[in-house]
Amino acid sequence: MDARQQLQAAAALGTVNGEHGSFGGRQLFLTRDSAEIGLPMRFALFVPPQGAKGLLVFLAGLTCTEETFTMKAGAQRHAAELGLALLMPDTSPRGEAVSSLPGATASWDFGIGAGFYLDATQAPWATHWRMESYLMRELIPQVQAALGLDAARTGITGHSMGGHGALTLALRHPGAFASLSAIAPISAPSRCPWGEKALTGYLGADRDAWPAHDASALMQAQGAVPYPAGILVDQGLADKFLVEQLHPEALESACAAVGQPLTLRRHDGYDHGYYFIATVIGDHLAHHARRLID
Amino acid sequence: MDARQQLQAAAALGTVNGEHGSFGGRQLFLTRDSAEIGLPMRFALFVPPQGAKGLLVFLAGLTCTEETFTMKAGAQRHAAELGLALLMPDTSPRGEAVSSLPGATASWDFGIGAGFYLDATQAPWATHWRMESYLMRELIPQVQAALGLDAARTGITGHSMGGHGALTLALRHPGAFASLSAIAPISAPSRCPWGEKALTGYLGADRDAWPAHDASALMQAQGAVPYPAGILVDQGLADKFLVEQLHPEALESACAAVGQPLTLRRHDGYDHGYYFIATVIGDHLAHHARRLID
Repeated sequence: MDARQQLQAAAALGTVNGEHGSFGGRQLFLTRDSAEIGLPMRFALFVPPQGAKGLLVFLAGLTCTEETFTMKAGAQRHAAELGLALLMPDTSPRGEAVSSLPGATASWDFGIGAGFYLDATQAPWATHWRMESYLMRELIPQVQAALGLDAARTGITGHSMGGHGALTLALRHPGAFASLSAIAPISAPSRCPWGEKALTGYLGADRDAWPAHDASALMQAQGAVPYPAGILVDQGLADKFLVEQLHPEALESACAAVGQPLTLRRHDGYDHGYYFIATVIGDHLAHHARRLID
Repeated sequence: MDARQQLQAAAALGTVNGEHGSFGGRQLFLTRDSAEIGLPMRFALFVPPQGAKGLLVFLAGLTCTEETFTMKAGAQRHAAELGLALLMPDTSPRGEAVSSLPGATASWDFGIGAGFYLDATQAPWATHWRMESYLMRELIPQVQAALGLDAARTGITGHSMGGHGALTLALRHPGAFASLSAIAPISAPSRCPWGEKALTGYLGADRDAWPAHDASALMQAQGAVPYPAGILVDQGLADKFLVEQLHPEALESACAAVGQPLTLRRHDGYDHGYYFIATVIGDHLAHHARRLID
């Protein structure tokens, strides 16, 4: 498929809320009804000027929407150079049907804007908070079909809660992605306050259900090296969430235990925000392009 | 001055509200009391990793703050490569002292967030809406002093209302800037709805006062070529404000009349927003760096 066919198919994925020229390509904002979520879901999709030869999924962090990374990271510059499409999903269900759920809007780290990229099993979340099935069974396959790209051309990355999402979805779905990276990911949600709150709320207080959604626990349990071509993780050392919430050393240990090549870069003077993401995003897109595009 | 000295002097310019690592440099957000405005004013300042060899002032558009361009344009990547400091002022006075003024918050194109980079002469605006004096007599000289850079190392650019600001300040203050560019500027405010509203409100209904703050009129009145090394202007052709509000052809005619070299690039498929700005900002920083840095 050429760029024009990809763009037409991408725009046909849903209602186009916005379309912008960007580095020679097109930045789309769309809404599409999700059967898994049971509600309309928003997402952003960048199609590079020469047509996409690979697709990179970016999962955003707590409080973000599909617009946050799209607007703040400057990733389109690199995607346009490399020939990558970028898919930016929203971070949870939204709208009147869910904003009245008790606890949906009470805190910034749970409920709306905080889907944690898993399928909730606990009431009232289990009905709509099905982000894993939404992404893996619906949105990513739909976008792949629209662009004419398969799993061998698809990578995943994300930031903070979205780094957790990228790592866990990539480890829970072998073969679904050909490349993996993360920026300041929540690496061991079973043992940090953000994760404990989310996993308790969405999966229940029984901790037996948690390791299946904990990147470090999942990695530790791998029988074979899941990403032999290596995983890239960047972490700022001035990140105020580093010690309490992120635990990159847990992922580092788990990768070492199973022989998973990991490039974990620690950066002096960088915090948890988008100025850090913008600084390293070019390296992440290059990491994926090397593995996705011949 | 080296980068460390510049950073220390920059941080001493006011209260530091935020500081972020960005492409090896530091992105500062500051507040400083302004004698000209009579209120605290916010601004953002990027200091590149190798130390600034030039300073580029970016003036933002309607509704923006000092954070908008800083966060959305991806300019720090280029500034870090080129050795440019970036100064992003806020777009108007703010706070309780002015938000109660009749009309200050009623519309998005006048009052707060819409200072138009001039000194108002009409009540009640004349007291605090003194953006031209604030920038030219206070903020820019203060930042130049902090960085050890003079007018020969200082350029100015801006977007929309800020493009108007860059063009008019550069033409009203010969010698204050060594380089000039604009993105989708309001090029003839005397004859567009945004400009007519602002100039009436700030300068009065007598149109005799307006040409002194109209880029095309100012250019037309030049006796000598003000920027012999050329002005760069980029304009998207899918910009919904182009026909009614921006009038780049008026600036083009005025430049032609006085022999001012102008590179006016018209871009198919680009709108008025930050995806366009991000796409062309690298060219603008390079334009300035070529004229500011030996």
